[in-house]
Amino acid sequence: MTKKLLLDCDPGIDDALAIGLAHGIPDLELVGLTTVGGNVELEHTTDNALRLVDFYGMDVQVARGAGRPLVREPKTAADVHGATGLGGAVLPEARSALVDAHAADFIIDTLAAAPGEISLAAVGPLTNIALALRKEPRIAEWAAEFVIMGGSYTRGNTTPAAEFNVHADPEAAAVVFGGAWRTVMIGLDLTHQARATAQVRSRFAGLGRLEAELLTPCLDFYGEHDGSHGRGPAIHDACAVAYVANPALVRTAPARVDVEVHGTFTAGMTVTDFGGAPNADVATELDVPAFWDLFDDAYRRVAEQLLHPAG
Amino acid sequence: MTKKLLLDCDPGIDDALAIGLAHGIPDLELVGLTTVGGNVELEHTTDNALRLVDFYGMDVQVARGAGRPLVREPKTAADVHGATGLGGAVLPEARSALVDAHAADFIIDTLAAAPGEISLAAVGPLTNIALALRKEPRIAEWAAEFVIMGGSYTRGNTTPAAEFNVHADPEAAAVVFGGAWRTVMIGLDLTHQARATAQVRSRFAGLGRLEAELLTPCLDFYGEHDGSHGRGPAIHDACAVAYVANPALVRTAPARVDVEVHGTFTAGMTVTDFGGAPNADVATELDVPAFWDLFDDAYRRVAEQLLHPAG
Amino acid sequence: MTKKLLLDCDPGIDDALAIGLAHGIPDLELVGLTTVGGNVELEHTTDNALRLVDFYGMDVQVARGAGRPLVREPKTAADVHGATGLGGAVLPEARSALVDAHAADFIIDTLAAAPGEISLAAVGPLTNIALALRKEPRIAEWAAEFVIMGGSYTRGNTTPAAEFNVHADPEAAAVVFGGAWRTVMIGLDLTHQARATAQVRSRFAGLGRLEAELLTPCLDFYGEHDGSHGRGPAIHDACAVAYVANPALVRTAPARVDVEVHGTFTAGMTVTDFGGAPNADVATELDVPAFWDLFDDAYRRVAEQLLHPAG
Amino acid sequence: MTKKLLLDCDPGIDDALAIGLAHGIPDLELVGLTTVGGNVELEHTTDNALRLVDFYGMDVQVARGAGRPLVREPKTAADVHGATGLGGAVLPEARSALVDAHAADFIIDTLAAAPGEISLAAVGPLTNIALALRKEPRIAEWAAEFVIMGGSYTRGNTTPAAEFNVHADPEAAAVVFGGAWRTVMIGLDLTHQARATAQVRSRFAGLGRLEAELLTPCLDFYGEHDGSHGRGPAIHDACAVAYVANPALVRTAPARVDVEVHGTFTAGMTVTDFGGAPNADVATELDVPAFWDLFDDAYRRVAEQLLHPAG
Repeated sequence: MTKKLLLDCDPGIDDALAIGLAHGIPDLELVGLTTVGGNVELEHTTDNALRLVDFYGMDVQVARGAGRPLVREPKTAADVHGATGLGGAVLPEARSALVDAHAADFIIDTLAAAPGEISLAAVGPLTNIALALRKEPRIAEWAAEFVIMGGSYTRGNTTPAAEFNVHADPEAAAVVFGGAWRTVMIGLDLTHQARATAQVRSRFAGLGRLEAELLTPCLDFYGEHDGSHGRGPAIHDACAVAYVANPALVRTAPARVDVEVHGTFTAGMTVTDFGGAPNADVATELDVPAFWDLFDDAYRRVAEQLLHPAG
Repeated sequence: MTKKLLLDCDPGIDDALAIGLAHGIPDLELVGLTTVGGNVELEHTTDNALRLVDFYGMDVQVARGAGRPLVREPKTAADVHGATGLGGAVLPEARSALVDAHAADFIIDTLAAAPGEISLAAVGPLTNIALALRKEPRIAEWAAEFVIMGGSYTRGNTTPAAEFNVHADPEAAAVVFGGAWRTVMIGLDLTHQARATAQVRSRFAGLGRLEAELLTPCLDFYGEHDGSHGRGPAIHDACAVAYVANPALVRTAPARVDVEVHGTFTAGMTVTDFGGAPNADVATELDVPAFWDLFDDAYRRVAEQLLHPAG
Repeated sequence: MTKKLLLDCDPGIDDALAIGLAHGIPDLELVGLTTVGGNVELEHTTDNALRLVDFYGMDVQVARGAGRPLVREPKTAADVHGATGLGGAVLPEARSALVDAHAADFIIDTLAAAPGEISLAAVGPLTNIALALRKEPRIAEWAAEFVIMGGSYTRGNTTPAAEFNVHADPEAAAVVFGGAWRTVMIGLDLTHQARATAQVRSRFAGLGRLEAELLTPCLDFYGEHDGSHGRGPAIHDACAVAYVANPALVRTAPARVDVEVHGTFTAGMTVTDFGGAPNADVATELDVPAFWDLFDDAYRRVAEQLLHPAG
Repeated sequence: MTKKLLLDCDPGIDDALAIGLAHGIPDLELVGLTTVGGNVELEHTTDNALRLVDFYGMDVQVARGAGRPLVREPKTAADVHGATGLGGAVLPEARSALVDAHAADFIIDTLAAAPGEISLAAVGPLTNIALALRKEPRIAEWAAEFVIMGGSYTRGNTTPAAEFNVHADPEAAAVVFGGAWRTVMIGLDLTHQARATAQVRSRFAGLGRLEAELLTPCLDFYGEHDGSHGRGPAIHDACAVAYVANPALVRTAPARVDVEVHGTFTAGMTVTDFGGAPNADVATELDVPAFWDLFDDAYRRVAEQLLHPAG
């Protein structure tokens, strides 16, 4: 049965790969993309979302959301994703246009229209989700499930304690983990298992424009700037999409996750108590071969479509 | 010239009096009421807003807003305002209906429709304003001015350090004071000068139903529960409306106001530096006789209308 | 009956005046001076204490204490007290020597030797007192009373929220207010009533070297640098000594005082709840004429001694 | 060459084993034991230190230190160590007496007497070390090296973020990591490699009273209460002693360690940045077989001495 996915993102290299993955999985229907400022400024994440939709040949609405965090000042990760967010990739200018609604409203309205049917996944800072939840708390009931790429139960990447997406908007994350749903936390402990090693990348040969114009310039840049030091960059956001497509790929454990918003050195840390009253299912282990099979299969399908558009 | 006022409130006894004041001032046109959870739960503040609109005979749209703070758990001041928020007053059930928009959107749309023309005042927790500002930062340009009842530069009332409205949602207040406008802070230092003493209340005789059904049961309850110990309750929120109607009633000083969001004993304190780079004009001194003249005059006009509806 | 006083200080201009006051009050016996880094570095506060002892012709032991706060980095108020701490006064080099004990130990040993007999007053950052209390909690029983100059229940002077002595070492102050004694807090609310106005200073004429070499160069500098803007500098520390000498000079109210150690804008604030379970008596009102009479009388006695040493 | 060790501890089961280890290593001379409240109250940790000295047949001075943390309220780990701190072990009452000095002074005086010669290790909360450092900052120069058992660069044990010793007194730890020395941090990441598995414990057979009266009742209790769930309890504190005896047993990496003192969920976390300007060498990997060889060898030597006292 086809699952419906509403994806909140901040493309960003791994977001770009997550969007392509969602598009290429036959059992997954992407019912909307919403954008947030994060890896780069909102202006770029939104433009990238539109360009990616066109490039992949997708038919999906895109809504622009929050340009800055709920409370704090904005910070980006342009050092990792490049000034415009897609590393060395330069996609054609977007032809598609934005839908005329704020991301928070688009999320509320989309979920309200099909309660219990749509999986909501967020792979950037959680500002849009927090705004939506505060405006309409019932989205926590309406979402079929809620999955984030974010956090860590050991160490962070932006600081020793905090992962980028949660560190970028700790208060929004605190709101989101406090919502009346069970957050599936796909954190660094899981995503660092999804490394695009040389062996993995060798499978992308033969993907044509997809490889030449997107995967290669993205992954080359990413691998040089994300601190992976030759082990291959971790394709964080794609793991959240993979989980929605096939939860069996990811082992999780129930846990109480509290987001630190007051620490001097720990702001944005997802403090994870596996013995506490659970508000989250925290990803611990990835079926790595199956993950890359899913990825490879999806990208072959996208590449095929680019050669032979349905139209 | 008539000033236009959009009022965000959480009625609440002093909110109720502020609404009546706004209605009775001839030079002031109330262009909308938005509600927020605060003195009592959103359900009650919204119901009270509608009942007050009917009771005062007003023609104004009411939009419901946030039921809980931006980040923290909700707290009310039902001990001061009574379980339903209007002390001993029991107004008839509302006939008016809510407008179908969230308060944050109503604020955005109302200000967008008339940039530079409408004064925005907020006399409850600042959740709606923060949500609106994050969704549409341009409201900071569109509002002709922005006035709050909230904060203090000496001591608080909910805690030794913090005033209720800011304490109820410190993060929202931090967002609001960080907006690209100059907040006029009508805090406790000012509003404690606006006490409904016995002498003041003696002037309300002859206001008919207005006195019997609203002012007396409200002020009797308020005076017994707000810690004023016989000095007469401070009609906080009415001071913000009075300032909009006639800024000459209030002396202000420019100051840098930072909202403490991390303290153990100081969360929600408006830390006010009169020597800092100003983001606010902070009220220091009220022309008390002129304030009560304005109040008395406005309520006489409202009482008159109740006897002789324009109809 | 003579009261015994052990004084912890960081001279500092108002400390200097407090020491002279203690020396000149016949009913007060100064049983020791301990020094702490504060208004200026420990090196200077200690040297100043020795020079003052010699200049005033006192026979009292001086013990050096902590050169930096319990947890935080040190900050001074050299802008207010001058680089070496006594404004424009240049006293002769010290002939007296330090006692060979750390201030914390000197406090412990002095109080232990006469339980219930000695008043302990601290008019600088509370580092020494906190160290002593942690090393020997029984000093809280041994001290006849414990008085500080520090804190405020309205506004601060170093920041809008915090007074210098508490701001300089908030954690030490938290320890001290948590001790098993009732702290008498002589804060800014009280000490701002003790201003050395022109009229007050006119009474110092005829004090000879005391005026020419100490009072005038100290007070001239202080008045120009402490933000008093011509109202006359507040002689903070002397108020604590005056309270010990004659508690009737100061009205106090019981209160719960909590020291904020976690706030961003409020660190070092003495959050004062007059309705809470009291751990302190907080000074509210000074008998100003009686204070200056005490001061004037004491300094005349000191001046007399300088002319006619007991020898 | 014999190394001299001054050990600050809070026995505590693993402290007890660390003391025995220090005693049994021929190249290590224990020059003093200082006690602090931690695993259990100071009264018990001090009594246990004395009993252990007698039981092991040691000739070493013991000085009692701080009974409570620098700033916060005390907490123990009596659930893990038993009410009196040695699990099921009941040692004979102490015959040895305490030296008449506070631990902080004993540390200062001992290090001052032999600058550069003595290794200082602390395996409990860091209160004594912080008090000593604040009273006499030069101990940072005088100690030949400074080693702690405490902290973690991944997850805690008392909370998800914090290890017990640092969590028990975060401000003291912040002081200590800020000292002018390079702290060797033997944290949980290392000590969790030192598990007293069944196989390890089988090597203790034949240690006579040492096994019957101390090791077995201690380790049985510890293994049931420390959350090790059958993997064998981690003998944390012994790792610090082992490091002093033979640094080659432990791999370390330089890192900047900041102690979080302000977080809600993260107080006492040792935030470890392996890329920052280093103030610590952080232990990462234990040579497990060599560690247990050292341990086994030392305890055989102690057992031998118990049978044949030198006397």
